[in-house]
Amino acid sequence: MPPDVILPYKKDHPASYAPGAFATIELLHTRPRLLRKVYIRPSFDQKDSLLAQCARLQIPALCGEEAFRRVRQKENEYVIGVFDKYVDKLDPGKPHVVLVSPMDMGNLGTIIRTMAGLNITNLAVISTAADIFHPKTVRASMGALFHINCAAFDTFEAYRAAFPAHACYPFMLGGETLPRVLESTGHPLFTLIFGNEARGLPPEFAGIGTPVRIPQSALVDSLNLSIAVGIGAYGFAERFGLV
Amino acid sequence: MPPDVILPYKKDHPASYAPGAFATIELLHTRPRLLRKVYIRPSFDQKDSLLAQCARLQIPALCGEEAFRRVRQKENEYVIGVFDKYVDKLDPGKPHVVLVSPMDMGNLGTIIRTMAGLNITNLAVISTAADIFHPKTVRASMGALFHINCAAFDTFEAYRAAFPAHACYPFMLGGETLPRVLESTGHPLFTLIFGNEARGLPPEFAGIGTPVRIPQSALVDSLNLSIAVGIGAYGFAERFGLV
Repeated sequence: MPPDVILPYKKDHPASYAPGAFATIELLHTRPRLLRKVYIRPSFDQKDSLLAQCARLQIPALCGEEAFRRVRQKENEYVIGVFDKYVDKLDPGKPHVVLVSPMDMGNLGTIIRTMAGLNITNLAVISTAADIFHPKTVRASMGALFHINCAAFDTFEAYRAAFPAHACYPFMLGGETLPRVLESTGHPLFTLIFGNEARGLPPEFAGIGTPVRIPQSALVDSLNLSIAVGIGAYGFAERFGLV
Repeated sequence: MPPDVILPYKKDHPASYAPGAFATIELLHTRPRLLRKVYIRPSFDQKDSLLAQCARLQIPALCGEEAFRRVRQKENEYVIGVFDKYVDKLDPGKPHVVLVSPMDMGNLGTIIRTMAGLNITNLAVISTAADIFHPKTVRASMGALFHINCAAFDTFEAYRAAFPAHACYPFMLGGETLPRVLESTGHPLFTLIFGNEARGLPPEFAGIGTPVRIPQSALVDSLNLSIAVGIGAYGFAERFGLV
């Protein structure tokens, strides 16, 4: 497969790429079967070790500059791992995070990294949403994308029908405060639900579970989405002994 | 002053600009004396209201396309507020956050927004560091930069000498866990200290106070800096009734 089949990234192509040595090595450790090819710059200081790992796993690896000329990213990368996109199933026995139409790939990747760091490893993304396989998302996740299960749903109702046993906690204005929810009603099989960057969750989400509000000052309209997920997910992870 | 004096942004120029209507209006409400000039696109839907506010505060405002052609940002803005850079003093009676050499302007702006949202309104930045006045930082802060006091110090020692009464909490591996610190040793006049994105804090910071660790899984090396600040600052803000 010549590199121009995949580079630059296209949303409707069945493959994507992990930008950078860190993300590619995470992929190699977690889902090696998905790796089509690893491109390595001759100047990469750990190229021998990476080439040996690829050889051991029978993953084609190419050391050369050519593939890198076609990747236009902010920073130059030393390694690119081209991989097949995949479909995960969420674990019905584990806690979930649901993101309703997140729009920013940086936020999405940061949230995935945070979830992996807090051992909340099942993420549902309600469409329309930022592309989980876009290299920018993979980069912001620092490769944590490959550690978690991530599934897309057309509507929240479709997600809810698939996981009726989870206790839902929509994060929205007007809910009970996070510390009070954690003291009183917290359920270990939880689904934490967050709206998108610009609009938050629509009011009807208040009816699907226990609405939660992160206490905040009047100096800002809202917290950044990835920060809200970080604070909320940490609260639940700590309460239920996940970390 | 013609627009080319300030646009595009230069670090060593005494002025910067707030990109976008939201950040410019925050500046107008919090530090109107610093506004040199407000540029408004003719297609901005609230231009009449903004022109009236500027007129009332005697801030020069110009409605036209010309200034916008020189601003190369990812997104087009409808409003730009050119302002004089300023020097804040930190409040010795309030809790602080210290960032040691943060490098990413998006992280820095997001942290500032988070701090404002948690009523922790004094930030020290230890040089070398991302530029707090860069339009990217202002944008990521959603204008919250203008709500908090932010001061630069050449070294952590210089900060520490200026604020000897604060109880220091360096966030680093190997510290006591955040929940335990908050239960036992938390002090309301606190300084939360965070290292930079790539390296965290050097080990010698363990000696300057009570080291704190955010519990996390082995799936990631670390949390994103802005997420770590969000979780840590939320924990302290909630514990001491700031929000």
